[in-house]
Amino acid sequence: MSKVRVHISTSLDGYVAGPNQTMEEPLGEGGEGLHDWVVPLKAWREASGMEGGEENVSSDVVREEYANVGAEIMGRGKFGPAPRGPWGDDPWKGWWGDDPPFRKPVFVLTHHEREPLTISDTTFTFVTDGIEAALERAREAAGEKDVFIGGGADIINQFLAAGLVDELELHVAPIILGGGARLFAGVGPDLKLELLRVVEAPGVTHLKYRVAKE
Amino acid sequence: MSKVRVHISTSLDGYVAGPNQTMEEPLGEGGEGLHDWVVPLKAWREASGMEGGEENVSSDVVREEYANVGAEIMGRGKFGPAPRGPWGDDPWKGWWGDDPPFRKPVFVLTHHEREPLTISDTTFTFVTDGIEAALERAREAAGEKDVFIGGGADIINQFLAAGLVDELELHVAPIILGGGARLFAGVGPDLKLELLRVVEAPGVTHLKYRVAKE
Repeated sequence: MSKVRVHISTSLDGYVAGPNQTMEEPLGEGGEGLHDWVVPLKAWREASGMEGGEENVSSDVVREEYANVGAEIMGRGKFGPAPRGPWGDDPWKGWWGDDPPFRKPVFVLTHHEREPLTISDTTFTFVTDGIEAALERAREAAGEKDVFIGGGADIINQFLAAGLVDELELHVAPIILGGGARLFAGVGPDLKLELLRVVEAPGVTHLKYRVAKE
Repeated sequence: MSKVRVHISTSLDGYVAGPNQTMEEPLGEGGEGLHDWVVPLKAWREASGMEGGEENVSSDVVREEYANVGAEIMGRGKFGPAPRGPWGDDPWKGWWGDDPPFRKPVFVLTHHEREPLTISDTTFTFVTDGIEAALERAREAAGEKDVFIGGGADIINQFLAAGLVDELELHVAPIILGGGARLFAGVGPDLKLELLRVVEAPGVTHLKYRVAKE
């Protein structure tokens, strides 16, 4: 059965990006520290089209995260920098250059209509009618595979609050960001979770939860 | 060497008490769920003067937390309910009846002077000149033993922000509180942590960190 999954790196104080996100620091001040654990890994580098890298106990966690994903949903803040608003005549084409690492259908939530954009093996489809519509399209595109909610915090929080997520994995980095984009903002006690697995790894702790359904 | 230690139950969204703390719900709405993992344990029940209880992988974590503590520092919000202000003629004597479970010197941070209060084996000393003064007195009282920072969030956050904590253990309950007293509020990226240990246990994940010093 196809699942809706969230896997996200978070600081110990619950931020998935630091304060003051800019073009130069898309993850905000200190936000790169969220990914210090994953960037050296072969599993991550392979998926990002890079050579080399190491193996450690996080490798299997990352490979499991990437496996069996048939479509991704992301917010406009993950797709591109502020300011938002209409796309304009020479619209932003994503952070990822001419070979985006997704290689699957990506649905970008936005308030502004735009034609689909195909770059190499990835097609970005822009969805203006909300998270449920985006999920419906992503599920259809994913078929038997899972749908990955790629972030940022705002989109993940909307999906969690709406009860639309099946599995949630937090990669908890041992850092304090002190501000930024906060996971779980606006998500209330109706979200019931059950721990599936804990993995202690170099520079990170992986906590995987199942969302309990009625 | 005597250490300053924090061990606290937190929700997955980073709250150590729920919203709307009252006399009837000292831990706020939903806040009792933070302690569902510990209340059934023999180790907790013994320390609270109760019979029975069970053993599981959390038992050793709890016993280690309680061991070698020579003094506790708490905020007025842990000692008693709102409203705060002057103590009055018939001052509040704590939540714990005539046999408080501490059995060691307790230093209560408050803005309002008050004579020490001894109940059974516990003496509460009221400190009005801030966290560093409280820590000095607690260290002296604890001797070779450790100082436990008992909460609430505000006091713990002050100690963390001031770089006065040596070890921090989070007992992460798989619940979302959606509001309340937030751990790490006002604590910035200068706090550098190093994971010491992870323990996966029924209904809780124990994450223990060492605070890196310069």
